[in-house]
Amino acid sequence: MELISSHGCFGGEQRFYRHDSREIGLPMKFSVFLPPQARKGPVPALLYLAGLTCTEETFMVKAGAQRKAAELGLALIAPDTSPRGTDVPGQEASWDFGTGAGFYLDATEAPWAPHWRMESYLIAELLPLVQRELPLLPDRLGIFGHSMGGHGALTLALRHHGLFRSVSAFAPICAPSRCPWGEKAFAGYLGQDRAIWLMHDASALMQLQKSAPYPAGLLIDQGLDDKFLAEQLLPESFEAACRAVGQPLTLRRHPGYDHGYYFIQSFMADHLAHHHAQLA
Amino acid sequence: MELISSHGCFGGEQRFYRHDSREIGLPMKFSVFLPPQARKGPVPALLYLAGLTCTEETFMVKAGAQRKAAELGLALIAPDTSPRGTDVPGQEASWDFGTGAGFYLDATEAPWAPHWRMESYLIAELLPLVQRELPLLPDRLGIFGHSMGGHGALTLALRHHGLFRSVSAFAPICAPSRCPWGEKAFAGYLGQDRAIWLMHDASALMQLQKSAPYPAGLLIDQGLDDKFLAEQLLPESFEAACRAVGQPLTLRRHPGYDHGYYFIQSFMADHLAHHHAQLA
Repeated sequence: MELISSHGCFGGEQRFYRHDSREIGLPMKFSVFLPPQARKGPVPALLYLAGLTCTEETFMVKAGAQRKAAELGLALIAPDTSPRGTDVPGQEASWDFGTGAGFYLDATEAPWAPHWRMESYLIAELLPLVQRELPLLPDRLGIFGHSMGGHGALTLALRHHGLFRSVSAFAPICAPSRCPWGEKAFAGYLGQDRAIWLMHDASALMQLQKSAPYPAGLLIDQGLDDKFLAEQLLPESFEAACRAVGQPLTLRRHPGYDHGYYFIQSFMADHLAHHHAQLA
Repeated sequence: MELISSHGCFGGEQRFYRHDSREIGLPMKFSVFLPPQARKGPVPALLYLAGLTCTEETFMVKAGAQRKAAELGLALIAPDTSPRGTDVPGQEASWDFGTGAGFYLDATEAPWAPHWRMESYLIAELLPLVQRELPLLPDRLGIFGHSMGGHGALTLALRHHGLFRSVSAFAPICAPSRCPWGEKAFAGYLGQDRAIWLMHDASALMQLQKSAPYPAGLLIDQGLDDKFLAEQLLPESFEAACRAVGQPLTLRRHPGYDHGYYFIQSFMADHLAHHHAQLA
């Protein structure tokens, strides 16, 4: 991994990296915030997955997370949201599919399958890489994300039991097999078999659990002025699935907040405290 | 003034406005953060001036200021950094002159003079406008800024005695008549008479004071890994001028911090507390 830049930030370091990804088959970028505590020894880390159109920079620039992460001694890791610069025709044609819209899964359909492998990239490559190269505690990992990245956080946490010890999301896409963003992405990346879609749908995955997979509880924040809430996000589906399997969920609905980073930064400290408590 | 968008943020509101500017002769945009306290009555406000290439959005997205401003009950106002969309040839030719580089002064030279009137825009138009239209206390106004905007904050505070009650800056251009950015801008906007330049040079203006204009003290933070420090910023000039006139100055030099917003956000809460104390 090649260090592109490093910036002092709240006594820690904000870093940007590039590496040649085996899973993606192309160079990928990611960002890492190391809190001041990482100078003295390995620290717990949170993987943050961003939403549609975002990059590895969005969270670090807009979420205001570093202050509290520095206080709590948490590292932050943010990958890009898709492969970049493939030769797939039409990759830039939509803002909600293709470039910037990897949906954190491995595509099985042509022409996406060779490069669009974000799930394997994160689980089998990026996390082992940063845990090998940086002062991170290997068994103290949390995951969170926003919108498409909230979908990613919830589904990866449900598909890879034992990997993440704490989970939260901001305005996640909770039932992608039943909303336009998800239907477009899943049809394109996974094909027409809806049974396969359910293996990447947080609400469907939760309903398949035999007992609460995260007994210490999940945290979701949702703005009520979010213009995507009714059609795309469907938190009530995930809430019902959690209730059905006894999964504790704190789902907070906030009047006056929309889908953007002004909403996210307003509740960021609460999410970091949630993870810190479960990673301690 | 036309409200472009409003976003819930830390219990307050992050707003973006557009208006037809009399001084600039074109539409201008600006942003305002209103803390939750503004719902109950007028609050103190800070004018933030951004650096080269920035817009009215930069500070609100990157500086992480809203959390502390909401806590302290401070409104934040951020204008754009220059006119946009004029018919001046070459306005986009440089990143450090023309568009995005207004230097917070009124140009006297052709072809810039008709539109490049950022000082009159701020002092005679924008501040009266927001104080008339928004719940802001008229006599409780502070000013701060970054780089070119730090130059703007220091020079406007020294050119308009009594208007601002508190002043601070991040990595300001402290002696623009003697650095490449300032020489280019002043020659272009003000012409070749260097005596006129000194009226827009914070260090020169401070040396002209008969007594400390801000006896409660100024705050400047400067990163020591700032690649512009030695050639462009010259804080030692301003420090010497303050010493000469007995102006209290807290100039903090921070190892490991560069010129960007990761530096700025790291010390933002200290600046807001500095202003809050002097505006109380």
